[in-house]
Amino acid sequence: MKPNDFPAANQSILFEDESWSNFGFFIKQSEVSSIFILVDSNTEVHCLPQLLGVLKAINQEAVVLKVEAGEKSKDLTVCSKLWSELTKHRADRHALLINLGGGMITDLGGFVASIYKRGIDFINIPTSLLGMIDASIGGKCGIDFQHYKNHLGVFKTALSTFIFPNFLSSLPEEELTSGFAEAIKHALIKDATYWKELKNSSKANWKAITIIKQSIQIKTDIVANDPLEKGDRKKLNFGHSLGHALESYFFEKEQPIPHGFAIASGMIMEAYISVKQLGLSQAAFEEILGFIQSHYPLYELSENAVNEIIKNLTQDKKNSGGELRFCLLNNIGIASVDIAVDLELIKESIAHYRQLT
Amino acid sequence: MKPNDFPAANQSILFEDESWSNFGFFIKQSEVSSIFILVDSNTEVHCLPQLLGVLKAINQEAVVLKVEAGEKSKDLTVCSKLWSELTKHRADRHALLINLGGGMITDLGGFVASIYKRGIDFINIPTSLLGMIDASIGGKCGIDFQHYKNHLGVFKTALSTFIFPNFLSSLPEEELTSGFAEAIKHALIKDATYWKELKNSSKANWKAITIIKQSIQIKTDIVANDPLEKGDRKKLNFGHSLGHALESYFFEKEQPIPHGFAIASGMIMEAYISVKQLGLSQAAFEEILGFIQSHYPLYELSENAVNEIIKNLTQDKKNSGGELRFCLLNNIGIASVDIAVDLELIKESIAHYRQLT
Repeated sequence: MKPNDFPAANQSILFEDESWSNFGFFIKQSEVSSIFILVDSNTEVHCLPQLLGVLKAINQEAVVLKVEAGEKSKDLTVCSKLWSELTKHRADRHALLINLGGGMITDLGGFVASIYKRGIDFINIPTSLLGMIDASIGGKCGIDFQHYKNHLGVFKTALSTFIFPNFLSSLPEEELTSGFAEAIKHALIKDATYWKELKNSSKANWKAITIIKQSIQIKTDIVANDPLEKGDRKKLNFGHSLGHALESYFFEKEQPIPHGFAIASGMIMEAYISVKQLGLSQAAFEEILGFIQSHYPLYELSENAVNEIIKNLTQDKKNSGGELRFCLLNNIGIASVDIAVDLELIKESIAHYRQLT
Repeated sequence: MKPNDFPAANQSILFEDESWSNFGFFIKQSEVSSIFILVDSNTEVHCLPQLLGVLKAINQEAVVLKVEAGEKSKDLTVCSKLWSELTKHRADRHALLINLGGGMITDLGGFVASIYKRGIDFINIPTSLLGMIDASIGGKCGIDFQHYKNHLGVFKTALSTFIFPNFLSSLPEEELTSGFAEAIKHALIKDATYWKELKNSSKANWKAITIIKQSIQIKTDIVANDPLEKGDRKKLNFGHSLGHALESYFFEKEQPIPHGFAIASGMIMEAYISVKQLGLSQAAFEEILGFIQSHYPLYELSENAVNEIIKNLTQDKKNSGGELRFCLLNNIGIASVDIAVDLELIKESIAHYRQLT
């Protein structure tokens, strides 16, 4: 059994230099029957030429599969088209799919590869901060279904993930900020020292390799201990219960907001709940609120929006037997999981959030 | 990590008595949030009442999900409907899906469960001989795609498989014969003594518990050694390369034939190839041919049919890098895997088969 068959065990993450030497070597020594590259309309322009150049240098052909940029591509119809393409090009079980893009591409591509002929190998080359420190590692792949985020999916680890920080230089600021929300989350759930570092970092530093490496370390440590999210891994959901519900609401309204922006709002609400339920100090709460507010927009929510968000929340994968369960903060850098939260307190946290806008 | 997360490791197979006591106990001690039962139009009538009776006796509610009988339900659109149903009924990650039916139901239900919210548990209760000795064990789940059999899928083992031989009493003879082809295969690839037993058994005995148990033993031994089909498990594909290609051809023509009938024909062709390529003796070949011919129909194949079958064969999951690879017989009870076979010899085996009809 190869490492890839155990979710998130032996996670291989390689940092890439200007010459892509790790990647070139990896492909040369792999025994794949054919290579497919999944891109979206953005990475096709900004990242694909570099990758094709590297493959050309080692005489490796590849078929490019393209989807539209944006969350809408994380959809069963798009999967179906990609499976058709793989079939048409006679991809066999030893084919390799390279996912070149942000979180949407690695989520989608990992899922498509894991299902095709009961699973072909895939490699992730994340091109966004979010992808590098979160989506591309840990083995969660999947797509949205009926406006529910990541409702269908599998746990399957990429054969390898290649981090090429230079890609971040072409990233729009909004996307950088979105990805940075996951770094904030990593600090809040695991590392008070890292939190101080982030608070003191300038925006220009958000794409620094030290931040990327620290966040990846926190995520991989957690995932290695609990690949299938039975315990510790649930900490990575901080801000994501309400954050996802908010994101789904705007997605359904066809006014999508960046994932990290939704998570930033979710972290505010869930930090509020942490104060009431786990005794997070008011000072810590205000420190969190202040930092998030200084970098992220807050969203005005109508009564109807609140109802929809609550409805989405009840469909959250993290629930159990009708109970709403959250990851909450005991303190900055310390989190607890599986905390059942009363619906009234959730509504109170949203009401508090609405007063901020 | 629970056993279920490792493909085919710790495969739990329980034989059920009249009172379904193992099953009742299993459900009572499990901590599921809700139960769903997948049936087709046949098992709804013949098997569901018994199962509902058992659940009622232990005060367990369940939601019944129904699909049409037949291979056509192993389809992405049907999956999508089932995922909608699960969502509508608010199935959470701790929900349980019980697959009550033949190979189509356990293939489909296992796949639907494995993808929903990145995987909920499922139990198989096979109601056909094929299901009991083959499809419901070993962790292969999946659906057809563009007329390619099991083109999309995952490896995921059922939490438990319950064998209730009494279900076979209501099984149409054609389905019993279809399932028996897999028992023939088990004998041919692994056990010459079992082969003699099968040859000497009367049709009335095909549903005997001794046959069911011997076949399950062969299959589980192979799967335990090689859950992900890297080596030994490929032996289970004997008769299935050409058999699947034949089955897909008739399926595409909308004249579907029973799976086991296709495999019976596939075994004749692949035994022929075994003679030419691995030195299977002519006497053994004629023994195999005679036994299969005495119980299974052979199909007339037009020139066009032959071309379509060859085309399907080249899309087989078992191929590697354009080479057509087969499991072939060295002798009755001994098989070899990954044998590259020349297209000309394949055509010759089909030509030989056509002369038999």
